[in-house]
Amino acid sequence: MNPAFRTVALIGKYQSREIAASLLSLVAFLRERGVEVLVEEGTATAVGVGGYAVASYEAIGARADLAVILGGDGTMLNAARHLARYEVPLVGINQGRLGFMTDIALGAMIESVTALLDGKFSREQRFLLNAEVLRDGEVAFQTLALNDVVVNKGDIGRMIELEVKVNGELIHVLRADGMIVATPTGSTAYALSANGPILHPSVPGIAIVPLCPHALTNRPITVSDSSMIDIALLPPHDARVHFDGQTRFDARAGDVVRIMRSRYNLTLLHPPGYSYFAMLREKLHWSSTPRH
Amino acid sequence: MNPAFRTVALIGKYQSREIAASLLSLVAFLRERGVEVLVEEGTATAVGVGGYAVASYEAIGARADLAVILGGDGTMLNAARHLARYEVPLVGINQGRLGFMTDIALGAMIESVTALLDGKFSREQRFLLNAEVLRDGEVAFQTLALNDVVVNKGDIGRMIELEVKVNGELIHVLRADGMIVATPTGSTAYALSANGPILHPSVPGIAIVPLCPHALTNRPITVSDSSMIDIALLPPHDARVHFDGQTRFDARAGDVVRIMRSRYNLTLLHPPGYSYFAMLREKLHWSSTPRH
Amino acid sequence: MNPAFRTVALIGKYQSREIAASLLSLVAFLRERGVEVLVEEGTATAVGVGGYAVASYEAIGARADLAVILGGDGTMLNAARHLARYEVPLVGINQGRLGFMTDIALGAMIESVTALLDGKFSREQRFLLNAEVLRDGEVAFQTLALNDVVVNKGDIGRMIELEVKVNGELIHVLRADGMIVATPTGSTAYALSANGPILHPSVPGIAIVPLCPHALTNRPITVSDSSMIDIALLPPHDARVHFDGQTRFDARAGDVVRIMRSRYNLTLLHPPGYSYFAMLREKLHWSSTPRH
Amino acid sequence: MNPAFRTVALIGKYQSREIAASLLSLVAFLRERGVEVLVEEGTATAVGVGGYAVASYEAIGARADLAVILGGDGTMLNAARHLARYEVPLVGINQGRLGFMTDIALGAMIESVTALLDGKFSREQRFLLNAEVLRDGEVAFQTLALNDVVVNKGDIGRMIELEVKVNGELIHVLRADGMIVATPTGSTAYALSANGPILHPSVPGIAIVPLCPHALTNRPITVSDSSMIDIALLPPHDARVHFDGQTRFDARAGDVVRIMRSRYNLTLLHPPGYSYFAMLREKLHWSSTPRH
Repeated sequence: MNPAFRTVALIGKYQSREIAASLLSLVAFLRERGVEVLVEEGTATAVGVGGYAVASYEAIGARADLAVILGGDGTMLNAARHLARYEVPLVGINQGRLGFMTDIALGAMIESVTALLDGKFSREQRFLLNAEVLRDGEVAFQTLALNDVVVNKGDIGRMIELEVKVNGELIHVLRADGMIVATPTGSTAYALSANGPILHPSVPGIAIVPLCPHALTNRPITVSDSSMIDIALLPPHDARVHFDGQTRFDARAGDVVRIMRSRYNLTLLHPPGYSYFAMLREKLHWSSTPRH
Repeated sequence: MNPAFRTVALIGKYQSREIAASLLSLVAFLRERGVEVLVEEGTATAVGVGGYAVASYEAIGARADLAVILGGDGTMLNAARHLARYEVPLVGINQGRLGFMTDIALGAMIESVTALLDGKFSREQRFLLNAEVLRDGEVAFQTLALNDVVVNKGDIGRMIELEVKVNGELIHVLRADGMIVATPTGSTAYALSANGPILHPSVPGIAIVPLCPHALTNRPITVSDSSMIDIALLPPHDARVHFDGQTRFDARAGDVVRIMRSRYNLTLLHPPGYSYFAMLREKLHWSSTPRH
Repeated sequence: MNPAFRTVALIGKYQSREIAASLLSLVAFLRERGVEVLVEEGTATAVGVGGYAVASYEAIGARADLAVILGGDGTMLNAARHLARYEVPLVGINQGRLGFMTDIALGAMIESVTALLDGKFSREQRFLLNAEVLRDGEVAFQTLALNDVVVNKGDIGRMIELEVKVNGELIHVLRADGMIVATPTGSTAYALSANGPILHPSVPGIAIVPLCPHALTNRPITVSDSSMIDIALLPPHDARVHFDGQTRFDARAGDVVRIMRSRYNLTLLHPPGYSYFAMLREKLHWSSTPRH
Repeated sequence: MNPAFRTVALIGKYQSREIAASLLSLVAFLRERGVEVLVEEGTATAVGVGGYAVASYEAIGARADLAVILGGDGTMLNAARHLARYEVPLVGINQGRLGFMTDIALGAMIESVTALLDGKFSREQRFLLNAEVLRDGEVAFQTLALNDVVVNKGDIGRMIELEVKVNGELIHVLRADGMIVATPTGSTAYALSANGPILHPSVPGIAIVPLCPHALTNRPITVSDSSMIDIALLPPHDARVHFDGQTRFDARAGDVVRIMRSRYNLTLLHPPGYSYFAMLREKLHWSSTPRH
């Protein structure tokens, strides 16, 4: 057994009982292998059966050598944002269709976890964004995002105006439904629907993608991951700010959303045979064979 | 005077006499400042007057501390490809509308060159691509590109098939009119017309942009600048390969176009006040002011 | 004088005093020409001066032979929706930048109105949409739209699901931020920001344009203007429905938004020299001259 | 038996022997039904067996009540262009994946043809384009197109300049790789790869779609099917003109490509159960089911 994985946390899909059977069989398997198991407390409540140690995200961060996600990309996003500061590596097992980050099928769960415990895996780092909302010079809100920060008009009319700066330098004043700021990880999520660029996870760039821009020339632009991106909400419009589609902040005219690369990274583990491009081909229905 | 610029080369628009007056006044100005001047030999022939030292690109590479381009982005591309290996910094003076790389207006020529000679400038590095066409395991053609390498169907029917690999791993088999591989510098040129992403020059990424792909999901993808990109021309189709729109190679079915970051970089000098985003706003008509 | 225009209504920008001077000079000019003038009551209130007959939209519909809009495209949209059933022709004078429908500049107001009164104009018909929201088989809401009907997620999360049918036949189940249904008139408005097609006003088609669709292949589709378009809001998501960006209805999961061509048309009058394509070139910065 | 189909022509994929077995079984089946069979002469040559009457397209046009296409959309395009003037209805049987127009699977061939002979079918009209190349005021070339007319740069550099007029009125001067003019039928073919609009076959519109336009605002525009579209090739660039991807003309600088709706229509017959939207869903992988 790989001594690195003495304690493994299990985190399930939010408020879902569907994962109970998988979780229990994984608990049993891990114990048999001599691994200490922690089940995230919300997961334990949702699953509703006992017989294992329950732990908060904080305790998982302090004690686990690995966290196994049972769910889809949304579950992974949530876990990543909670655990990023602790640098616990994550691996994702998907109950349904494979996700971009939850790339192990349920049927391959035991086989893949065995490989991980045996030290057979590849390790990949994904960076997160640190996002702050500044109001009157103070930080009114702060959080992390693995996929994206979305500023949008919410419920308030047709268009908002955003002044976008990079490292203090004006890019443009944007009239649009909103703006997405996405990591390479998020570039295949919501940003892709808004015609944003696909950035391979190894590209240290941040994509700035307008949502339904008024001017037809307002294309997405990708800047370096060392950039400080400031999005000022020009009066009179308020706006909503969404972080990974999971956390929301109601911003006011005059607020500035400041986005930088976080000092924290997510470490994803992949079982042998993982391929980013294979996953992309699968999800986007790209061809892998010539016609003739 | 900045001791770094003792010898300055002047390179004009290809086969153009229009730049004669600007060139001569720049020669006079530089001599007055005690700078040795070399005029590129093709430029000298096109301008058709004498009274200055004439030099090949090779001699310019060996002796010049700076090359001043009189022309547009096409002239800059051509000079960059000739001089990249010598690491001579370049600066561009545009006769007409400002270009993405030729960002000094003719009217500001003397003032800007004075600033450069006085050491007042910013320095920016742009990477180039090294492109090879492999045939039967041999390198059949090799060149550099600052903007892009374009593989297209040329004159031969409606669609070609390309097998695209990154670091030996399959991305997809593409059915399309062709494919553009662009640097950040080239991302605002032809690739942008094909709906490619804008990459800030500080992003170490290479954009792979399909041209009229048959499958609607074949979006552009940006990979790391350390990638080796192989584009295999699947039989039965031949294809044309264009480098910066200036050099062309007729490739055959079975050939592989291999593209990597070149070991050479282009160094651009900018006079005080240069801003990449200001140039982008100007060229793309982005707004810099709120509506109200 | 053209006997067709004995009574002319004037309608100004909503709650705006800016148009007072233009309005008063137009009143004076029309009276001098022996034309009876009606000022829309909201306009009269906003302008705040008297000395002319004030009329409701209903009275304008009953009595006016022509309505002159003083404002932008938003003012035109509003007037068109109020007056469509009365078939009063409209003409638009723009205080600021010319709009797509308000194509007379303020400086040309008197000259253009003179031409109209003299019978020198072209006449153009634009169709409107009739939109209903059906709930439990009843019409819960009904209105007209000249530009577009927009169904969007409002404030409620990241994606909604819409089942889209044309003449009872399923097009698709769309997962997206929403959907725009636009007339040719609306095709150059919001729908264009969402990558919708530009439809010339003479094309009897209705564009169905997804907003940030989850599937990359969900492209806009244009159907015949005789189509009945049903958009069902699939549970569990509620949605907002916007009509010309001016009227809003909060729809619930299960509701169906039914859109058909209205039996009413808007008649726009244009002074001599009007050109749809010239307007498009101007607004979209299309080139009208060769490079060389 | 439907008396309308006394004589049926069979037209196979160009130079293909693959269709021999299907063709022979269809010949046998039709004879048994008392239908006279004509096999298109090129098809007969390709198939290489005899035992049936062979006929030119001209003879088919004069005598057949129906033509059955054995092949894909390319075969259908070719037959449609040959037979349009004779108004022979067409039906398509696809050997491989269903096409947009060849919507009967090989396995359903006998069943579907039986339905047709029994009068059970729907009838759909598609319009064609009449295209002329004008040189010095003379018609230098003329042909029909069911899908599209494509003007492109061919092999000659990076961009061409086209002056585009509709009914004599300038739309714009386009700098691009080229231009596609597509019918609704062609709107799901090549034009879709160039980001053109999908037009339902019942929309009487013609899509004008730029290929990689230099200006980011040069979006596709759809005009009425009564429009005369003139595309002038501005000097110094020559261009290629492609018709349905099957016929090509080498045009010169100064030539004008004039495109109008043809007076001929293609009549497609569909077996019971045919649905345009179902076909679109299938080809474009649109969802027909809610997620939950």
